[in-house]
Amino acid sequence: MAQKPSIPKGTRDFGQVEMARRNYIFNTIKGVFALYGFQQIETPAMENIGTLMGKYGEEGDKLLFRIQNSGEKAAAAPEKGLRYDLTVPFARYVVQHREEITFPYKRYQIQPVWRADRPQKGRYREFYQCDVDVIGSDSLIGELELIQIVEEVYRRLGIRVCLHINNRKILAGIAEVIGAPDKMIDITVAIDKLDKIGVEAVNAELIERGLNNDQVAALQPILNLSGTTADKLMVLKTILANSETGLKGVAEMEEVFALIEATGVQLNIELDLCLARGLNYYTGAIFEVKALDAQIGSITGGGRYDNLTGIFGLPGVSGVGISFGADRIYDVLTELDLFPQALQSTTQLLFATFGEAELRYALSWAKELRARNIAVEVYPEPAKMKKQMGYADEKAIPYVAIVGSNEMETHTVMLKNMTTGEQKQVTLDELCTIL
Amino acid sequence: MAQKPSIPKGTRDFGQVEMARRNYIFNTIKGVFALYGFQQIETPAMENIGTLMGKYGEEGDKLLFRIQNSGEKAAAAPEKGLRYDLTVPFARYVVQHREEITFPYKRYQIQPVWRADRPQKGRYREFYQCDVDVIGSDSLIGELELIQIVEEVYRRLGIRVCLHINNRKILAGIAEVIGAPDKMIDITVAIDKLDKIGVEAVNAELIERGLNNDQVAALQPILNLSGTTADKLMVLKTILANSETGLKGVAEMEEVFALIEATGVQLNIELDLCLARGLNYYTGAIFEVKALDAQIGSITGGGRYDNLTGIFGLPGVSGVGISFGADRIYDVLTELDLFPQALQSTTQLLFATFGEAELRYALSWAKELRARNIAVEVYPEPAKMKKQMGYADEKAIPYVAIVGSNEMETHTVMLKNMTTGEQKQVTLDELCTIL
Repeated sequence: MAQKPSIPKGTRDFGQVEMARRNYIFNTIKGVFALYGFQQIETPAMENIGTLMGKYGEEGDKLLFRIQNSGEKAAAAPEKGLRYDLTVPFARYVVQHREEITFPYKRYQIQPVWRADRPQKGRYREFYQCDVDVIGSDSLIGELELIQIVEEVYRRLGIRVCLHINNRKILAGIAEVIGAPDKMIDITVAIDKLDKIGVEAVNAELIERGLNNDQVAALQPILNLSGTTADKLMVLKTILANSETGLKGVAEMEEVFALIEATGVQLNIELDLCLARGLNYYTGAIFEVKALDAQIGSITGGGRYDNLTGIFGLPGVSGVGISFGADRIYDVLTELDLFPQALQSTTQLLFATFGEAELRYALSWAKELRARNIAVEVYPEPAKMKKQMGYADEKAIPYVAIVGSNEMETHTVMLKNMTTGEQKQVTLDELCTIL
Repeated sequence: MAQKPSIPKGTRDFGQVEMARRNYIFNTIKGVFALYGFQQIETPAMENIGTLMGKYGEEGDKLLFRIQNSGEKAAAAPEKGLRYDLTVPFARYVVQHREEITFPYKRYQIQPVWRADRPQKGRYREFYQCDVDVIGSDSLIGELELIQIVEEVYRRLGIRVCLHINNRKILAGIAEVIGAPDKMIDITVAIDKLDKIGVEAVNAELIERGLNNDQVAALQPILNLSGTTADKLMVLKTILANSETGLKGVAEMEEVFALIEATGVQLNIELDLCLARGLNYYTGAIFEVKALDAQIGSITGGGRYDNLTGIFGLPGVSGVGISFGADRIYDVLTELDLFPQALQSTTQLLFATFGEAELRYALSWAKELRARNIAVEVYPEPAKMKKQMGYADEKAIPYVAIVGSNEMETHTVMLKNMTTGEQKQVTLDELCTIL
């Protein structure tokens, strides 16, 4: 009858060590979100299929996990699908609950999403997203606060990062002034490769992507942009002189950088004109964060959108949000060995005993320690001492309190420090002081 | 184009107030679990359909949500279903990871489960379970620790409860000694109604359920059981004298009650021979916890099982576990008005400003406060003061710091206590002291 147990491809079990590490990441992020007044919500794993379809492009529609209805009325029930991201459910949530919501609305959401992608290294069919958004205000203080949050989260995690920032209006302006307004994405994809392949190859690719020689020539000042952020913005103002949209984008960037300076943000921030981001709902600032000491791509990203809720009947609500990539942050912390050591075990001490009477004695000590909020375990049987010590070892419990008849008589335990191997007889009061 | 947004029947959105309350429940429970060395794991939302099918009875199979495969290779991919409870995935986890696990294995798991039940008041298609188990030991210290956990969780939550305890071996013994070993469930279902319908009606129901007059007569001493736990166990020993299983059950209960007494457990505990619990994998102690001040049924339940992992190829591993019903605990705390007031908002203070310069001034103060780990918000625009104050009101933010030109000149803010209405001008240092 026995079945060989396994889990679906692209999904994962998280054991206690992974969970402690994941909780460390989520709790760090939540702690920073709370400092800025963002509050948590959750939405159901399944949404009506109509809520999801058509929101992620043709490719996305194919990657939706659909849910089959069980039971007799299966045919009559509306179709459902598993959440594909947290953005569309959030837009649905805002529209559905708009009467109860206080705008500007600051929310965060940390939940799994599901995609029927081909599983491969670092790509899963179930993974957590961690989104933070403020919606219902076009104030650039939204951008500033997200940048401050990025700074503080990575400061707390100990990861050195660079935040790349750009603005969709600038990209649109560039495409507009060179006379190729429909080529915004093509241009940025090509420019993105500048560091890797050089100016000549980028220009060749631009031609391949349908730009003419004049347009490529007009792009050269942008490819050559260098210097400080102020220098870059100055040049852009000249180039974009005839694009209202482009100039608006420059003005937004100027204000964001002014706010960054006024509030003393210490983060590495680079105005990166090659940053485009794929999602087509962005309309203003866009961000990506890269770890400086690990080769892993973007670990946080986001941007401003002006009409996310329009599809659900609430147009013209501007918002800005970012998403922390928990899996990649986990990988960076692992690679750089930055997880705190203390996460391994929450248990401070194990009682190991030589007999039933000693076990009862240990239980009453354990009660006293727990009443002082100290996490302890009692090995549930007077098993061989080697077995009990092995348990402490494997669970990385730092102290073992050994109880034999001598300890019971003297109202003590034999305390063993599992790191140093040191042993000494201690009273309950002494034990509390040590722990 | 606009769609009217909604969510599938039987599912729920959780807004910030509900989330804060749910997190309060989960964090309280987690804090107690940690004191006893239980560690968290998570399993995927979807399991292979073979893992789930046949584990919940015919009725359960019908209530599984199945997942349709998307994409080209849909037909070839193995079928999957959404997690129906946390017990079967836990058994699968233990067998799959047995080489990495240190036994006795103490784990907890807090995740949603999905059932295609007909939605109705208090019954959802997506709801959280909160399970804690120790597996790989038949020591009754497992039972003791779960009882201590129940005591401490409800002490911390402020809910008065009674824990009902019984033992499947006693129930089996009773059925055995009256010569109806296959009628264990029928007998307990009938006895369960004793308080409501009286002895005569119970006896009639027992006959209806297939017992003969002699068997019903033999049951009378059990229906009349009263007195202390020790009294009840004494009578049971006489009644069950010829059942090895029954006597083993009595001995287990005696030991559990001895451990309870030795460790000074203060919880209301009642040996309740009418408690049966439906799940057929229980083999020893069974528990249910009821709130004394709310009519809501069981809010926590569980028991010992001797062969949960057998179906996945690992027989003979004994364990004991309980599950906290988060939704019902939420309802009890709401009904009895026991949620702490401070959960409503994490933000301590809102900056409300009269102009752009004041806004910048507020941003630099906000930075100082956040650096001291104080959660504050800056209203992102110098909107009408009424609007800014309304925002603080709706979010239940206890203090507003109003900034005008006078405050900027004197390096202060006008601090308004939103509860009392009091206002006074304070410096940054004074503000930090107040918050």
